[in-house]
Amino acid sequence: MSSPIRPPDDLPASGAWRPGDPVGDRRFHEVTPGRRFSLEGGGHLGHVELAYETWGTLDATASNAVLVCHALTGDSHAAGRGGPGHATPGWWDGLIGPGRPLDTDRDFVVCANVLGGCQGSTGPASTDPATGEPYGSTFPVVSIRDMVRAQASLADALGISTWRAVVGGSMGGMQALEWAVMYPDRVRSLVLASTTAAASALQIAWSHIGRMAVEADPRFRGGDYYDAAPGDGPWRGLAVARMCAQVTYRSDEAFSERFHRSVIEQLDFTMDPVFDVESYLDYQGLKLVRRFDANSYLRLNRSMDLHDVGRGRGSARQALSRVSAPVLVASVRSDGLYPPVQQRSLHDDLQSLGAEVEWVDIDSPHGHDAFLIETATLGPRIADFLDRHVPPAGAADD
Amino acid sequence: MSSPIRPPDDLPASGAWRPGDPVGDRRFHEVTPGRRFSLEGGGHLGHVELAYETWGTLDATASNAVLVCHALTGDSHAAGRGGPGHATPGWWDGLIGPGRPLDTDRDFVVCANVLGGCQGSTGPASTDPATGEPYGSTFPVVSIRDMVRAQASLADALGISTWRAVVGGSMGGMQALEWAVMYPDRVRSLVLASTTAAASALQIAWSHIGRMAVEADPRFRGGDYYDAAPGDGPWRGLAVARMCAQVTYRSDEAFSERFHRSVIEQLDFTMDPVFDVESYLDYQGLKLVRRFDANSYLRLNRSMDLHDVGRGRGSARQALSRVSAPVLVASVRSDGLYPPVQQRSLHDDLQSLGAEVEWVDIDSPHGHDAFLIETATLGPRIADFLDRHVPPAGAADD
Repeated sequence: MSSPIRPPDDLPASGAWRPGDPVGDRRFHEVTPGRRFSLEGGGHLGHVELAYETWGTLDATASNAVLVCHALTGDSHAAGRGGPGHATPGWWDGLIGPGRPLDTDRDFVVCANVLGGCQGSTGPASTDPATGEPYGSTFPVVSIRDMVRAQASLADALGISTWRAVVGGSMGGMQALEWAVMYPDRVRSLVLASTTAAASALQIAWSHIGRMAVEADPRFRGGDYYDAAPGDGPWRGLAVARMCAQVTYRSDEAFSERFHRSVIEQLDFTMDPVFDVESYLDYQGLKLVRRFDANSYLRLNRSMDLHDVGRGRGSARQALSRVSAPVLVASVRSDGLYPPVQQRSLHDDLQSLGAEVEWVDIDSPHGHDAFLIETATLGPRIADFLDRHVPPAGAADD
Repeated sequence: MSSPIRPPDDLPASGAWRPGDPVGDRRFHEVTPGRRFSLEGGGHLGHVELAYETWGTLDATASNAVLVCHALTGDSHAAGRGGPGHATPGWWDGLIGPGRPLDTDRDFVVCANVLGGCQGSTGPASTDPATGEPYGSTFPVVSIRDMVRAQASLADALGISTWRAVVGGSMGGMQALEWAVMYPDRVRSLVLASTTAAASALQIAWSHIGRMAVEADPRFRGGDYYDAAPGDGPWRGLAVARMCAQVTYRSDEAFSERFHRSVIEQLDFTMDPVFDVESYLDYQGLKLVRRFDANSYLRLNRSMDLHDVGRGRGSARQALSRVSAPVLVASVRSDGLYPPVQQRSLHDDLQSLGAEVEWVDIDSPHGHDAFLIETATLGPRIADFLDRHVPPAGAADD
């Protein structure tokens, strides 16, 4: 019979960062000291903290701050090495650093783990101050707008009244777009990669399937699994959800190029994994389990489902009419999950509203993940866009 | 907390057809009376039966027989109404019938449930004569070639030495292609819709994910669940697998057109299903559970993974050089799972080998499922192709 993926015994019940774990490069910001944080969907959280990281130095007039917003399974560690506290190297390391497109010799780059996340910001794995226990199943659904309001509090605390740029891809692009709609006076330029003005039916479909996979895992226990022993958390459901996502993030051509029909050992007629692409997926599934929390995964997917820049604002056009910053919209031709038609539509809507907007279509086979992979192509386009629209202080005198 | 899909209590442990169930329009053929059926991957089955259906009348010279091969979750009921014994109407009803492209006033159309299937042909839900119990986890992996060899035995029994046409889409196209390679003298024309010469890494990836979803269901019990009470079979894993498949069978544009962001009742910030596309997927998942068997689902997916017309034959080109029949290859522009590049490549290979081959690219938004949906477009192309290449007996005198 088949041998499904076997987890090492040390697989955590939740991959969430917990107080007491190595902090790595994180710092922490308390969003609403002494009062509750109200949520767009109703309800509130008693205590909200954001984990964030910064690179570079804020200049005297706080004019060089760049906010980078992360995607679903990202976190505040956008740049830098992996190591204690950081399961992986920075997810946009090619874009952020000295001499890189977001040049930390010049810019002050900030990235915060989102509200609802699991790498130090308040989320389902956090302790509910009302009970002293992890929120688990009781953690509310937060919206992209809730995430952005929490980030605005962080900006205030850092003394940043306006961002030179707000930059993000996928769910990060949703946040960036909401920044420009919610706080148009605080955003001097906007970079939206592989994102959308509103989640599509296809995106919601995959999100739903991920939820169904996790909730089907009896070890999910309805979301209250934090006291489970290693190996006894919802690793299996989360791994299946991640495998689905991983495939939707890539493309037929990238998979064909990389795996073709290559086999692990030999071509057996068996239900056991035979093909390299199978072991790749198993690996990717368990890799996420080690560094993520199932409840966060479901909540953040739901935040994306609910993303619709027009919600409660009359229409998407009315919402987008608030954007005053110049905008760079980036697409990837092979992205089947956030296909270029979505970014083109966003570009066209902004343009018809009079915004300064540019569009770049990246010719990559890597699908949705290209915004993470193709930094060598995307980076120079971003740098050029920023140089032209928000020249660094003093650059005009050069 | 979220309310995952709730099955009615009558959900069967397996949706397989069992002896004693209404036979509907099925007939049965014993493939190897009195001896074992050897399998390509080694091993054998002690008793192999195919359930099949026919439409029209075989002419005196057996010159008008058309074999229709079904896809993964299809069965012998290619045409006709739903009713006792047939959970759904014929899956290619628009193509098969009096006056239809496969005109049963003229042709004798045959469709058999594949070996390894669950609608009357020998499969994992069948009784193993060696034990008197359902095969379950012990059922071997069968290959597309095994399926075709069993169908050849049916053709013999029906007195059909050559097929006027062998026609199939997706997994059905894999069988049709193998027919033309294994039995080139028995195939006078070939129609291959939305299929491939060898399963791609992407196709194998989705197949693997389906397996992982089913095997993660504790009610799957490693494949031995046939004595489970209604509602206690692996419905949940199979439903998740089906949801994945259902999305890969369609397209972003079709989903956007059909569902957009329409909600079931109101836009709540909840983990419960909110959007119409979610209830659609839940419905599709459970619908398959009612009429399919989880072990068959896994085995047939594996048969597709292993599909590679070149396997053991030197190369794909060497295998394809055996095809002597004229071939119609059909693609769908929006098919992301079996993308047109695969059919184009198959077409080009056949053409370079000197085959008479035509290619039609169907301009449909319906993705892979278009070969089932767009019969109004595909049908006339097939009829035209057959009229030109294998004119019905007597037609030359008209």
